[in-house]
Amino acid sequence: MIGTAVIISTGEELISGKVVDTNSTFIADRLFAVGVRVAAVIKVGDDREKLLWAFSQARELGDIVVGTGGLGPTADDLTTELVAEFLGVNTKLDGDVAASLTARFAKRAVDFTGNNLKQATFPSDAIIIPNPNGTAPGFRVGFGGGKQLIWLSGVPHEMSTMMRESVLPWIIEQNGGQSTIHEATFKIHGVTESKLDDLMKPLNLSDNAKLAFRAHFPDLTLRLTVSGGAAQLEKFTTLRGQIKTILDDYIYADSEITLESVVGQLLLHNQRTLALAESCTGGLISHRITQVAGSSAYFLGAAITYSNAEKIRSLGVRPETLARAGAVSQDTALEMSHGIRKRTGADIGLSVTGVSGPSGGSREKPVGTVWVSICQDQFHQAKLLDLVILSDRERIIQGTAQAALNWLRQRLSNN
Amino acid sequence: MIGTAVIISTGEELISGKVVDTNSTFIADRLFAVGVRVAAVIKVGDDREKLLWAFSQARELGDIVVGTGGLGPTADDLTTELVAEFLGVNTKLDGDVAASLTARFAKRAVDFTGNNLKQATFPSDAIIIPNPNGTAPGFRVGFGGGKQLIWLSGVPHEMSTMMRESVLPWIIEQNGGQSTIHEATFKIHGVTESKLDDLMKPLNLSDNAKLAFRAHFPDLTLRLTVSGGAAQLEKFTTLRGQIKTILDDYIYADSEITLESVVGQLLLHNQRTLALAESCTGGLISHRITQVAGSSAYFLGAAITYSNAEKIRSLGVRPETLARAGAVSQDTALEMSHGIRKRTGADIGLSVTGVSGPSGGSREKPVGTVWVSICQDQFHQAKLLDLVILSDRERIIQGTAQAALNWLRQRLSNN
Repeated sequence: MIGTAVIISTGEELISGKVVDTNSTFIADRLFAVGVRVAAVIKVGDDREKLLWAFSQARELGDIVVGTGGLGPTADDLTTELVAEFLGVNTKLDGDVAASLTARFAKRAVDFTGNNLKQATFPSDAIIIPNPNGTAPGFRVGFGGGKQLIWLSGVPHEMSTMMRESVLPWIIEQNGGQSTIHEATFKIHGVTESKLDDLMKPLNLSDNAKLAFRAHFPDLTLRLTVSGGAAQLEKFTTLRGQIKTILDDYIYADSEITLESVVGQLLLHNQRTLALAESCTGGLISHRITQVAGSSAYFLGAAITYSNAEKIRSLGVRPETLARAGAVSQDTALEMSHGIRKRTGADIGLSVTGVSGPSGGSREKPVGTVWVSICQDQFHQAKLLDLVILSDRERIIQGTAQAALNWLRQRLSNN
Repeated sequence: MIGTAVIISTGEELISGKVVDTNSTFIADRLFAVGVRVAAVIKVGDDREKLLWAFSQARELGDIVVGTGGLGPTADDLTTELVAEFLGVNTKLDGDVAASLTARFAKRAVDFTGNNLKQATFPSDAIIIPNPNGTAPGFRVGFGGGKQLIWLSGVPHEMSTMMRESVLPWIIEQNGGQSTIHEATFKIHGVTESKLDDLMKPLNLSDNAKLAFRAHFPDLTLRLTVSGGAAQLEKFTTLRGQIKTILDDYIYADSEITLESVVGQLLLHNQRTLALAESCTGGLISHRITQVAGSSAYFLGAAITYSNAEKIRSLGVRPETLARAGAVSQDTALEMSHGIRKRTGADIGLSVTGVSGPSGGSREKPVGTVWVSICQDQFHQAKLLDLVILSDRERIIQGTAQAALNWLRQRLSNN
């Protein structure tokens, strides 16, 4: 039974503060999802003595140890030989891995040096963990006392695939599960993390059924994981259904995709084109929409109208409206969405105007006051967003873009 | 003499993978800058046994231990009492801190509970480290054998101020320096990290003079630190001068500010207004410009013209030009920068048009082909950026925005 793990991250760049270690966070998150508790994370440089210390401490604290880094071909890549030294075993050259490395280098017409064979060398008795995205495979080896050491590439996208394809299925199997884990991810907008926590209280969770939140403003992700294979499928289906019922329209996606991708898919599916009129968001919504590959199929363009003169010139906002109601007002937002739609001929015009601060706020319109408007066929409405609580310019801009995209998503979903 | 340190980060959110630990990276980076080598980083949850283990291991490995987290008022904040237990000393309530906490809560009209006094409690004999940005001060306490334990708030902007104002000056003083460290930061564009490494080889560095690179695409930062107080000022000045001479126009700022802030300051100083015509960058340049507070003083707006029709309508690009040279061409870029300047009346028009991929590339214009143009008074030029090597859509968009802003900066600096 694997109940606890220790994670080791190695590399000089980690302990000199040059690079933020995201590998250990990813690994901890995935281990948590399969019910393994992380006792500690240890980061050390490419240093013999410190690595040996890390091995011995990690073995004390965890049923398994998952490490990353130091598997490369250069002299400062010490992991394999030190693991062998620590275990008192020899290293072995794996013929299959060596052949595949040689072929790979030949194909790229890159010189293959003796050093590269280091990546085909493993502690004897190690089980090799394939690395489909890179040249250095990982390994798993008995660590004494029924414990196991697992070592993976330190390159994030290589490590994540190795975790997903090899390490997690093996852990689940060791823990007596069929090697399947049921998992559902929900991307959420419109509730705070603490509210979400409250809403999930009625769920009947247990040791094998877990919920995890991850807040990365303005994104909020909820993940349900149920381990235990086919026998637990019904439980998983029930919980997933309950979550969907409780959160309903707060859920904007049921997979790890961005809100702008969801909006893009809906525009494509509904065969609608979009144009934007942004003031306080200053181009962020447009940037997010165009980060999606293929967005030119539905996105015509945007007018970023930071000045009143530009609102008049590019969007046909009436000077009287600006004088009477102000740039941050329902009427201006409505005229902006109508204006951009008319000018570009897009099916949908979306506009945003607000006070993102730090200056420019007033008693009636404090920093965080934002109007959003959508214009489409007969539908022409504006909505007030109260983001005063976000207080900081960057968060108001980010929160506004998210809320505007989410309103557009709701509108497209109901069409 | 403080030569080595161990960093401890605590919190359940760190070992369950919910939050990336950036505190330890920041602390490692700052320690490195004052010549202290980090032997290891240890992360544990809010767990008595694991914290005591971390204390004892850290004391073995480092001359000092710098920890964060667990200083709050709730039951899972264990740090202070566990440090006292580990050292075999009592805790004490600090009258000044308690009075200041009480006053702070009274001012906010928030209920002050007995729990909050936890934040005024310290191991006896501890030196209190002020926390100007929060309610929980930190402390420094003798750890046995001439070693010292330093504990700081886990809230990043509180921790960073405590490091800068209290911890680093103390370390420098302990190491016999006047408590001054000479530091210069250079923000860089136009060279790769490995090229930068080569260019810096001729510098005469030493134990007390260090260079550190930090690459966070598209940003590249170089930092020179010379410790040793007034006696080393001349050495510092010489090195800083050499770096400026070698890198010259690759340096876009000599402090930790963004390229869009530099551009903003130059526009303000030169009293020039800006308007943008963006195609492949889809609003990112506009977003970056408007992230700077006060940008409405010089930024009029942007046209994000994703379609050819929008390039014609909003910017007056001639259909013949699009038909003859294509949307991604020198002529189109020139007409775009001229068009946006003319339409908005801005002093400077900046345009971008390119192939960001993944589709849309051809043999003559592969993905990564980008034209940038600036139109200002008599100056009307376009420049080809070859970003084919970046290959991925997100990086091409980011790299294009950076290169375009940097060209604008060079132009404004020479005016």
